[in-house]
Amino acid sequence: MKTEKSSVKVIPLGGLETIGMNITAFEYDDSILVVDCGLAFPDDEMLGIDLVIPDVSYLVQNADKVKGLVITHGHEDHIGAIPYVLKQINMPIYATKLTMGLIDNKLEEHGLLHTTRRKVVKHGQHINLGCFRVEFIRSNHSIADSSMLAIYTPAGTIIHTGDFKVDYTPLFGEVTDLPRLAELGRKGVLALMADSTNVQRSGYTATEKMVAQTIDSLFARYRKNRIIIATFSSNVDRVHQIIDTACKYNRKVVVEGRSMVNTIETASELGYIEMPKNTLIETEMMKNYTDEQIVLITTGSQGETMAALSRMAAGNHKRISIKPNDVVIFSSNPIPGNEKAVSRVMNDLSMQGANVVFQDTHVSGHACQEELKLIYALTKPQYAIPVHGEYRFLRTHAELAQDMGVPKENTFVLSSGDVLELSKDRARISGHVQAQGIFVDGLGVGDVGNIVIRDRQHLSQNGLIIVVIALDRQTNQVLAGPDIVSRGFVYVRESEDLMEEARLVVSDALEDCLGKRNTDWNRIKVTVRESLGGFLWKRTKRNPMILPIIEEV
Amino acid sequence: MKTEKSSVKVIPLGGLETIGMNITAFEYDDSILVVDCGLAFPDDEMLGIDLVIPDVSYLVQNADKVKGLVITHGHEDHIGAIPYVLKQINMPIYATKLTMGLIDNKLEEHGLLHTTRRKVVKHGQHINLGCFRVEFIRSNHSIADSSMLAIYTPAGTIIHTGDFKVDYTPLFGEVTDLPRLAELGRKGVLALMADSTNVQRSGYTATEKMVAQTIDSLFARYRKNRIIIATFSSNVDRVHQIIDTACKYNRKVVVEGRSMVNTIETASELGYIEMPKNTLIETEMMKNYTDEQIVLITTGSQGETMAALSRMAAGNHKRISIKPNDVVIFSSNPIPGNEKAVSRVMNDLSMQGANVVFQDTHVSGHACQEELKLIYALTKPQYAIPVHGEYRFLRTHAELAQDMGVPKENTFVLSSGDVLELSKDRARISGHVQAQGIFVDGLGVGDVGNIVIRDRQHLSQNGLIIVVIALDRQTNQVLAGPDIVSRGFVYVRESEDLMEEARLVVSDALEDCLGKRNTDWNRIKVTVRESLGGFLWKRTKRNPMILPIIEEV
Repeated sequence: MKTEKSSVKVIPLGGLETIGMNITAFEYDDSILVVDCGLAFPDDEMLGIDLVIPDVSYLVQNADKVKGLVITHGHEDHIGAIPYVLKQINMPIYATKLTMGLIDNKLEEHGLLHTTRRKVVKHGQHINLGCFRVEFIRSNHSIADSSMLAIYTPAGTIIHTGDFKVDYTPLFGEVTDLPRLAELGRKGVLALMADSTNVQRSGYTATEKMVAQTIDSLFARYRKNRIIIATFSSNVDRVHQIIDTACKYNRKVVVEGRSMVNTIETASELGYIEMPKNTLIETEMMKNYTDEQIVLITTGSQGETMAALSRMAAGNHKRISIKPNDVVIFSSNPIPGNEKAVSRVMNDLSMQGANVVFQDTHVSGHACQEELKLIYALTKPQYAIPVHGEYRFLRTHAELAQDMGVPKENTFVLSSGDVLELSKDRARISGHVQAQGIFVDGLGVGDVGNIVIRDRQHLSQNGLIIVVIALDRQTNQVLAGPDIVSRGFVYVRESEDLMEEARLVVSDALEDCLGKRNTDWNRIKVTVRESLGGFLWKRTKRNPMILPIIEEV
Repeated sequence: MKTEKSSVKVIPLGGLETIGMNITAFEYDDSILVVDCGLAFPDDEMLGIDLVIPDVSYLVQNADKVKGLVITHGHEDHIGAIPYVLKQINMPIYATKLTMGLIDNKLEEHGLLHTTRRKVVKHGQHINLGCFRVEFIRSNHSIADSSMLAIYTPAGTIIHTGDFKVDYTPLFGEVTDLPRLAELGRKGVLALMADSTNVQRSGYTATEKMVAQTIDSLFARYRKNRIIIATFSSNVDRVHQIIDTACKYNRKVVVEGRSMVNTIETASELGYIEMPKNTLIETEMMKNYTDEQIVLITTGSQGETMAALSRMAAGNHKRISIKPNDVVIFSSNPIPGNEKAVSRVMNDLSMQGANVVFQDTHVSGHACQEELKLIYALTKPQYAIPVHGEYRFLRTHAELAQDMGVPKENTFVLSSGDVLELSKDRARISGHVQAQGIFVDGLGVGDVGNIVIRDRQHLSQNGLIIVVIALDRQTNQVLAGPDIVSRGFVYVRESEDLMEEARLVVSDALEDCLGKRNTDWNRIKVTVRESLGGFLWKRTKRNPMILPIIEEV
């Protein structure tokens, strides 16, 4: 693709159409700058998939141009794909201190720590990457050290907000650097790429301080109870304030869930969570304390089956049992799709006698409409490119930008892979590069695609019937079988008649084929599949996967 | 079980712990009365299951006692299991007119219409069933002809609310018969069994009239657009008012979705939905009208994959395409668990240019806290038995009953199968009968149990590897194979090396076994499964189902 003189290309390689998997390439002449490198969690229909990572073929094809990877903040949907992508294309990483600490954990796990150049950047600092210059701007989110980015390109300045909100009374750190945004706005901003997560909510996101007050009042109210709080391990600010409140009420803190332990460790080591010595205790030590001396911070606020809280609720956690005196606080909202799982965990906890509290102990980390309008009012961008959100969100965001004075033809609801060329004179989608989710299943990256998923879906709904036949290679005689094995279809011991009939149906079909001297084995397989499939549908109105296997002897 | 003198047994056979599958038996001496007979929709982990129906073994074992089945209203979670249960135990059915019309559809489908005694009952009417007398009391819900029941037993009067709300300005029908409840309260109510669905919501459920106003204003606003409205086919009142509004605005009505067509047909035939002739038109006739002359009422408000709206959104509906000028109104809230599916349909509609409206066009059909308190204030029951809701809901409801003056020891949070004996003098759980969900999959009822579901889950997450070996019965020689077939594991064409290595692993294991003259075939299968499983886990960190099959020749 040929770039027009003085136009910069904006190429989202993920993060549109869906939540997560945020990654965007910026290209000018011989320089490519990458912003964020996140993963997405699989949809319900992606059976057995662990993660989804972006396809970075475009970066690999243009590896010589890629100058570096700049990260806005340390959440999985912005850093989770880094190790997978670095294995395909090595590039230096630029991030703030806590963000880099969390990235380092990942690099270490994948054995990439010593082969990756990393540079910790402070808010206000600028870095040069090819013909780009990037400034890190302080912002509020739900994790310390979050940044917006001002990307200075020869075609103009692009502001990328990352995930953000405007919290005038943050518990930790300072307010989003609004004066700097205003300054950039005065100098002229070519394009604004802003967070669309909450664009359908009117008003402002409440301050984290409100949550702190509620949590404090719950601690005051439940002085006699053991308190268990579930939240996102990624919500470093929340975890931080829970620990602070525990200290205030003279409680020891027990941490459960691997990701929670890791986050607290990293954040403490780097000085982002401060607490008196001996605040944290091991789970095993709990027995030395009374209920009113303990706060347990745990993963599982989304009802994830394997998370610590779910195991406690189901009564199969190795070290912790729920007691009738326990108060369990959900400091989180269910992410869409998790409502039922969360509800199940709450019921389980309730059945064990726990008092489940689920109100006013969470605020979002993302900007609502009025905050977004503020950013538009300050930066006054020529172009608006909504990011981070489902299609409808992006569309609502484009309308908001128009309300804020951005001409309709200057707002772009992009798809992943679109190449948007921007200059002061004009903007247009000039092409499309490869961009889609790649499935990670166990150690396999990309070896599970649509065919495998379709098979898993078929198997999951209807189960499987295997028909095995041993045939004599020379005479085409049946030497053994047909034998029928099924899994996930019916409870075989109570369906012996059905299975025996099925065997006869196959025998007949087989005899028919071989009697006609039909020795095309594919033809035989098709015949077996069709006759057996027809029989089973008629008898059960079910449609199992049928696998005929012929062994040549 | 022996019943104490003058105590009545209340035996919920379903409907507790979960939403749906409502059915309760009342037993006194030689009489059993059954109230409702509903189905539940499967949870996410019940792969491939179509419906869940109650286990009525207790009724079958006591068939001679069963006097009849009384139905509160015509929703699936109260009538859906009737045909399945009638096949096990025939009993006469008592219900109001519309309710019976909807039941008749089911009986006809299952060929049971002519073998089932049915009696249509009016509100205010009493029927005698053994030593029970049942009065049907008018109530509001989201479907016409809903009833509460007063069950007169020798041990006292039990009021069962069914699903209800209190709507002082219902669009159709009249207000819940509060004076009758007050009268019963004055005479003395032994127990109240009331709807817990919305017990966690404070205040009152808004009136359906509010929805009517919003829908009217949307019709007024979108005069130039084709209007598509998705709602529950079971919400007869809502469908009714949409048709009324369509008539007011001179629009023709097109109905899409089998259940929606059936409901409208039955409700119209029985006089519950009145409209001018020619209001309804066939989908094929739409082309003769302009957009502003059409309202399309459709199923799919829950994002169900196969529903009409989902197919329109995905662009694979046979007769209807979404157009950029369309306004799509969701007159429903997502049921917990469906949020993501609903969101996907909205995105798809939005991508096709439709304007998606999703606000203030729905109210619940269930009572909130203040309405429940009203019912307690009127009926003043001695005992409270919360029904219809998850465990936490029942518990919250028990607390509400206590706030309303029911002594704590007189509130019962039951489990399905519990036998609660009630008399004026005392109440206790005196036993437990069989009660659990039975899976329906296609034509199969109960032939899919936990083992089959576990296999489906295993297959869905990891896929399957089949190892086939043909062995000589006499010499134990391998005549053919090992051959490996996989489905849902990896994309085989790109994993040839892995599959070839897997074959070698199996060959080695087999050679080892046979070399040691180990001819216990189960032992051989275990060895193959373990060695191959170990190899695959090491190489892929995945755990497919491994099925070794030995063909004796």
